[in-house]
Amino acid sequence: MNKKSYSIAVVGATGLVGAEVIAVLAERQFPIAALQLYASLRTAGDEVECGPVKARVDLLERARFTGTDIVFLAAGEQITAAWAERATDAGAVVIDTSQVFADDPEVPLIVPEVNAADLAAYGGRGLVASPDAAATALAVALHPLHDAVRITRVVATTFEPVSSAGRAGIEELQRETVELLNGRSVEPEVFPQRIAFNTLPQIGEFLEGGATRAERQTATALQRLLRDPDVVVSITRVQVPLFFGEGISVNLETNDKLNAAEAREILRAAPGVLLQEDPSSAVDTVGQDTTCVARVRGAETANVLDLWIAFDNIRKGAAVNAIQIAELLIRDYL
Amino acid sequence: MNKKSYSIAVVGATGLVGAEVIAVLAERQFPIAALQLYASLRTAGDEVECGPVKARVDLLERARFTGTDIVFLAAGEQITAAWAERATDAGAVVIDTSQVFADDPEVPLIVPEVNAADLAAYGGRGLVASPDAAATALAVALHPLHDAVRITRVVATTFEPVSSAGRAGIEELQRETVELLNGRSVEPEVFPQRIAFNTLPQIGEFLEGGATRAERQTATALQRLLRDPDVVVSITRVQVPLFFGEGISVNLETNDKLNAAEAREILRAAPGVLLQEDPSSAVDTVGQDTTCVARVRGAETANVLDLWIAFDNIRKGAAVNAIQIAELLIRDYL
Repeated sequence: MNKKSYSIAVVGATGLVGAEVIAVLAERQFPIAALQLYASLRTAGDEVECGPVKARVDLLERARFTGTDIVFLAAGEQITAAWAERATDAGAVVIDTSQVFADDPEVPLIVPEVNAADLAAYGGRGLVASPDAAATALAVALHPLHDAVRITRVVATTFEPVSSAGRAGIEELQRETVELLNGRSVEPEVFPQRIAFNTLPQIGEFLEGGATRAERQTATALQRLLRDPDVVVSITRVQVPLFFGEGISVNLETNDKLNAAEAREILRAAPGVLLQEDPSSAVDTVGQDTTCVARVRGAETANVLDLWIAFDNIRKGAAVNAIQIAELLIRDYL
Repeated sequence: MNKKSYSIAVVGATGLVGAEVIAVLAERQFPIAALQLYASLRTAGDEVECGPVKARVDLLERARFTGTDIVFLAAGEQITAAWAERATDAGAVVIDTSQVFADDPEVPLIVPEVNAADLAAYGGRGLVASPDAAATALAVALHPLHDAVRITRVVATTFEPVSSAGRAGIEELQRETVELLNGRSVEPEVFPQRIAFNTLPQIGEFLEGGATRAERQTATALQRLLRDPDVVVSITRVQVPLFFGEGISVNLETNDKLNAAEAREILRAAPGVLLQEDPSSAVDTVGQDTTCVARVRGAETANVLDLWIAFDNIRKGAAVNAIQIAELLIRDYL
């Protein structure tokens, strides 16, 4: 236990989240003894720097994970489903940023500021899940309020940038914007409809009952993170035409009355939260690791609070949270 | 009473809303005997067609409104405040799309599908107010549900296009988008920050308590339109980078339980509502006069309903509602 440095692998190393994982590992000077990077045929062969460490991206098919301590899975759901067990069978601990294991009771779902203690269960399957971006940010901001006055209802509407759909999402918004500005028509490929200069009130497929699978996932993850299956969570996830930076409009009903000034006091002291006087716009959050909270306001006649959350969907929403999990793992367990 | 045709004036005739008022008057074959169009120095002199009627835009300073039956005020708050009384003093009925009179208890605030009977009070000051776009759409969609089961709480988050700030808003998004795609920096003029590829969780100035004046206005207007000051309304109005078409994410708490199927039945029969299987994106609504409602879904453990509203912010959100008010006026009063 407590080795000085660790053998790390990143699967999906050339994707948006994978590349950010590598960048954040370097920034935070994660103690890396060896670095393996894996991707698909299209991007394998690239050489990537991670602080002082250089590594060439290899084909995922070549991965064996023997002697690897931690594998970051930053790939889609299919690759995750196919490769997670191979990595744990080889003895690695897997930190997964897809949501394949988010509902699995044997896999801890971790936001370090919120439920670090739950990480103790990582040994069950050798897997740790990092929640989706919206659930992560909501948990960071709401957890301290829930502890103080018990939240009974959460109503949240997300403003999600195209980077939540990876590089292909970014390319689609760029391409469509240029076409439209030149008066040409566009054919959507990644999103179900044109996203440039539009708002799509649907992310992923609909389930019976009318929520999308992504919304159900976020709601369930938030209940897990708050350790409260009784909190009623209504989530609407909406795609908007920006590249990076996510906003969430949040309304809370609380069991005990909490006025806006008291809520601000709690949030000011909350780990991972940056309480702001003026709300961050989406682009203000890019490159930040904190979850920005602003516009905290109450209602006079009800136990109700409104607030605005803004954060970098690729950093705290994915890469930074995964690496915070890894930091906890090596501090306390590996 | 019941003249065959009417003398109409449009103030702000070359703005987005004013131009749409003229277009919709023609589309709906409003019986026009004479048409006066007024604007500022910058656009006066233009010749405009309104169906078979042609008119030249005159300087507002020249307006006298003598013999005018109905004046559409489609200008900013300052011009409205300065000119509304001159028009009513001259004997015209003023229909105002700015929100100067929205809180005035002597001025009826009208959405014809919702509270047509309140128009009887127009004679008090000779003024009728058309609510802001969000309040109008919310009232059309929520009024029939409120009648059925009494709504106790409304949580709404708007996705507002730049056309809500008029032509200047449209030009700013165009200009900023082109600059950013060319790798140049941008200087915001109309909006407090860059709007291209961004989300701004603030429209207009903040009031004490943390809501914006625009949010307070929408909440108060909705309470007036639902004739229920006890409904707790939480509104967050957000500017997004699109040109036309507004979306609103809505969560309702109701006094009596209403499941999603029952809510859909009520909405299907509601005047002015288009109930949809698949939700409209913002651009789908452009040119439509109905308020689209989709994604109606309930919660199992609470009297809660979620839905998505989409509509053309310049048409039903402003011009069409104003003309529906005029149609009621000439049918029942003038």
